[in-house]
Parts: sequence; structure tokens; C-alpha cells
Amino acid sequence: MKQFYSYPGPFSLECGGSLPGITVAYHTFGTLNADKSNVIWVMHGLTANSDVADWWPGTVGPQKFLDPEKYFIICANVLGSCYGTTGPASVCPSTGKPWCNHFPKITIRDMVKAHRLLAGHLGIKKIHEIIGVSLGGFQAIEWMVEDPEIAENVMFCATDASCSPWLAAFNQSMYMAIHTDPTWGEPRLDAAKEGLATARSIALISYRGPFAYNMSQRDSDDKADPFFHRVQTYQEYQGEKLCRRFDVYSYVRICQSSDSHDVGRGRGGIRKALERIKARTLVIGISSDILFPPECLRQLAGNIPGSRLEVMESDFAHDGFLIEHEKLNKIMHRWRASR
Amino acid sequence: MKQFYSYPGPFSLECGGSLPGITVAYHTFGTLNADKSNVIWVMHGLTANSDVADWWPGTVGPQKFLDPEKYFIICANVLGSCYGTTGPASVCPSTGKPWCNHFPKITIRDMVKAHRLLAGHLGIKKIHEIIGVSLGGFQAIEWMVEDPEIAENVMFCATDASCSPWLAAFNQSMYMAIHTDPTWGEPRLDAAKEGLATARSIALISYRGPFAYNMSQRDSDDKADPFFHRVQTYQEYQGEKLCRRFDVYSYVRICQSSDSHDVGRGRGGIRKALERIKARTLVIGISSDILFPPECLRQLAGNIPGSRLEVMESDFAHDGFLIEHEKLNKIMHRWRASR
Repeated sequence: MKQFYSYPGPFSLECGGSLPGITVAYHTFGTLNADKSNVIWVMHGLTANSDVADWWPGTVGPQKFLDPEKYFIICANVLGSCYGTTGPASVCPSTGKPWCNHFPKITIRDMVKAHRLLAGHLGIKKIHEIIGVSLGGFQAIEWMVEDPEIAENVMFCATDASCSPWLAAFNQSMYMAIHTDPTWGEPRLDAAKEGLATARSIALISYRGPFAYNMSQRDSDDKADPFFHRVQTYQEYQGEKLCRRFDVYSYVRICQSSDSHDVGRGRGGIRKALERIKARTLVIGISSDILFPPECLRQLAGNIPGSRLEVMESDFAHDGFLIEHEKLNKIMHRWRASR
Repeated sequence: MKQFYSYPGPFSLECGGSLPGITVAYHTFGTLNADKSNVIWVMHGLTANSDVADWWPGTVGPQKFLDPEKYFIICANVLGSCYGTTGPASVCPSTGKPWCNHFPKITIRDMVKAHRLLAGHLGIKKIHEIIGVSLGGFQAIEWMVEDPEIAENVMFCATDASCSPWLAAFNQSMYMAIHTDPTWGEPRLDAAKEGLATARSIALISYRGPFAYNMSQRDSDDKADPFFHRVQTYQEYQGEKLCRRFDVYSYVRICQSSDSHDVGRGRGGIRKALERIKARTLVIGISSDILFPPECLRQLAGNIPGSRLEVMESDFAHDGFLIEHEKLNKIMHRWRASR
């Protein structure tokens, strides 16, 4: 069920400035038990939304690791997104028009701050399990370091403790593509759609990796045009598809928040920051992930006291977390049974 | 020494149409011996040129595997390039202006055809060793399949028998970035420079991979702006750098030639085509290459009768072939000693 929480503001931002007030869109599944001990909080990736059952098939339902019969599952849309939480597509109160490019830059810490306000509003002081995947993992790590008492258990999947130069290089290529679009900067939500489509095409490369592409996009042996590859239309199609559901300003602000990610900032470095984590921690890497290679997850786990690492075998690279729900369910059930 | 060979034409193209005549720019190093048995022919990658000593440091010289005291080394610039061989930057005879976007699409086979004309012109009927890296590997594979008698030995490095969906996805993202540039299509060689810079930024990602980026572009711990990464300026800089030496039309035509690569086209498939190769073959993969993962090279080698596979350990991904000259020299010397 989609719900909204409005915080009157001002909502001050880590890097200066503030928002006059924010709305956080969130979904809940299942029922909160009497002692509020059955909360699972899911933190979503870049262009996803608060409806976990929609973007994470095979994970919500009876016997799944997000079982609404047992748990009260919360997922909130991130600050900066266009799925209900305040972002560039929201109306700026002082102008009466969408913020577009005038929406301030936000950090992962700003995103977490918004979610913590929601938790407070819901009266949740202890979370049974926090689950963060990809950009959601950035948030989950931040939250656990900022407030080590908040959760009993936490799972970080296909993520990292900071934005690597590698991720920043993908982001930068996307910004370059977007800035080349002559309509970039125009104060309308359908600006720079061509740039946005290219950005999506670039992002997909980082999500899929060589094996997934070569498995799923193989050409037929008898194609007529030697210069044609079906993946060309696939990349175009995926670009257009994102353009139908996302605006360029929200996209850029969220990517920039990923640039800002560094759990060690102002905390004496990554290692010291991660040492603060008290929850039982499961770190899941994906064997073929090129965006967050298993080695990154190994390092992340190595810096979290008593954490457990699982490397999930998959040919689907980063997107494996969206596709391999059977493997994920097994890993999560095994982890829960063991603790 | 840079030289030019002019073929009066017409030069017919694999996919229809023809060029009125072509020039091939090439470098030679060393001296051709009396029985013409000391020729090494090097085939270069995407944006390189005929001056091997320039783009492949540490490989040309005494004791190196390209030793001009022993060998007569030839490297010809590819058709479609802007380094002397006919391409979009050349003057079209019928208009007196650069071809720009009117230059026809060319395939890898067209490139090889141009090089074979040069070989004929030089009176070279047998090549001691052909060396093809990356896009140069595409050409070398084509040449060996088209004319299995031409070389006694051949080395293919960081390459493939066809353009994979994965490579085509990178190419497509680059085309999308270029087409977003409003000056794309304008009949001038400095058109679409912003799009070209983005394309280069995307290509670099495919050449470097996560480990090389994370090693060489690490940020300082005390950076002032949380949104800033030094890799951002690096990607911009590399984009600008390519723009100073390449035009967008040459770049696109060469990338499209890589799309066209399929050694099995019209030959009953890749396996049958590769079975034709008679030369002693060394296939070199690079352990961290994400563009042509070692698995591709293993498959390539597996399809070439009696070939030898070496996987070179390197953190520099595809660019490893440009950087790891000491390892390459060792591998090449070992191979030569063994045959």
C-alpha cells in the first residue's frame, strides 16, 4: 500500500542549503506486530520505487524472504526520485513549478536522513532487518554507521562503502552524454530525453556485463545487415523505456548522490566507520558483477566486525540481484536459520 | 618511416558501392632481407596509426619482439582512419571536400582488402608473422581466414572472431551519445566534438575495467567536494584529447567496421572459418580484460587448429596490451623459441 509522509521542514542538506519541506512516499506490506519487532526495511536502487513487489519479483510473498505474513515490510522512495518522494520533479513551493535543474544536490546521507524521519514518524525505534541493494546498500551502510543501534540484522547486496572511481567514471560518461543534449537545462521535465536515453544505455552496460549480453542478445546467424546487432535496438529501447518513467533531473541528482557516497567522510575513513556497525551483517556479492566486483564486497565484509560474506554465483552481473530471486531466497533463509 | 601507397581504384566495398581510389599510409621499420622472409606485419587498434613505435611503447627496438635489426616490420593505417589512409577526413574527389558523413560504411574485410593490396604492391607473398591486437586482431583473423597461406605465424591478442553483443552495446551507446550532439551530420571535420568526447569516455570504460580505474584514479581522503571525483576530469580530459586527434566521422566508421566483424559470415559460421587457419597461431588474452574476456580468447583458440593460448596476468584490462610490454615481450620470445 502506497502512503505518504510529509515533513514540514526545513530539511537541511549535508552540503548546504535546505528544502522547504519534504514528502516521503513509502509502501508497507504485512502487519506490524504488537512489540514492533517484525520490521524489515528495504532500501531500493537507482531508478526503483517504494513498491518492492513491483521491482523485485520473487522476493515478496509467502515463503519468500520478504514474507508479509511474518514481517512488516517497509520500503521508502529515495529523496530526489520521481516516484512520490520530493525531488526535481516535485513542485517547488516558491515558484509553483517543478524544481527541475534547480533542485539542490543531495547526498546519500540526506536520503538516509529522510528515511529516518519516516521511521520516527512510524514510531519504529528498532528494525529487525535492513536490506539494502545497490544504491540502497549505500543508504543501508550509511544508516548502520550513523545509528548502529537501529537494526538487529542487516544485509548489503551488490554495493560498496564508497563510490569507486570506476562507478564515478560511468556516472561521468552519463553526465557528458546528458550535457551534450541541447535541451539539457531547460526548465521542463521532458528536457534532455535523448541524453537520458544514452545515459541509460551506458548504465545498462554496467548492470549486465559481458556474459549476460552475450547470452541474451546473440544475433541470428543469417542476419541480412552485417552492421546490425539486435542489441542496438535493445539499447535504444531501454533508453526510451526509462525516458517514459523518469526525468533527466531526477536521474542526475540520484546519480550525483551516488558520487557523494563515502561512509568514511568525516568519520576517520571507511575502516573506522564500518567498525561502528553492530548488527549481524550479511554481505552478498554477485560473482559476475562488474560494477561492484565480488572483491569489493569481500573488502566491505572484511571491514565489518563479525560479518558474513556470500558470493552468489550468477551470469547476470549486477542485475543478478533482480533476477536470481531463488538463489537470494535460499541465501537469506540460510542466514536467518543460522543466527 | 611513413610512406604512402596509392591504388587507383575503383575499390569496391563488401556492402556495396566503391571508393574512387584509395591511399594507404604505412610505416616500415628495419630492412627486408633478400628472400623476403623476415616480414612482421602489425595490425593496429581503433584509433591508432601506422607508427607502431609511437602507440606501442616497449615493443619496437633491439631485443624487443619487434626488433628492426632482425625483422622488416610493416604497419598500415586502416581504411576509414584519419592518419593517412583514405577515410572520412580525406578529400572526396567529386566534391573537393572532406567526405565527412558521406564516406561509405566499411567492413573489416574492406580494411584487410586494402592491406592486401599494399602487400601485393610491396611484393610480399609470404609474411613471417602477423600480429593483430584488438581491432587489429579482427583484421588479422580475417586475413588468415581469407588467405591461409599468407603467413607462417600469427598472433591474435585481446580480440575476437566476431563482434559480440557486448562490444556492440558499447558501440551503440557511443553512437547514441554522438547522435545527441546537435552538430552531428554537419559537413565539417570538427562536428559533434562533444558527442565524440562522450564516446571516448564510454570507450575508456571498456578498455580499463574496475581494477585499473580503482588503482589509478583513487581520490585523496581529504577532498573538499563530496560530489567530485578526479576521474570526472580524467574522463573529460581523455575525451578532449581524442577530439584533438580524431574526427567523429572517422571514429564512427571505424566503430561500425567493428560491428561488421564476423569471420563466419558467408563461410558457414565462425568454427568453419577458423578451421581454415594454417599458420602457427598464438592467442593472447588478458586476465582482467572486460571487453574481450579471457573466456572469448579461450574459445577463439579452441577453434583454431593447433593454436596456443596464453592468458597474460594484468590488472590493466584491455589496455594491458599497451602497458604490459615486458610481459608481452616475454610471451612472444617464448613462443618464437618454442616453434
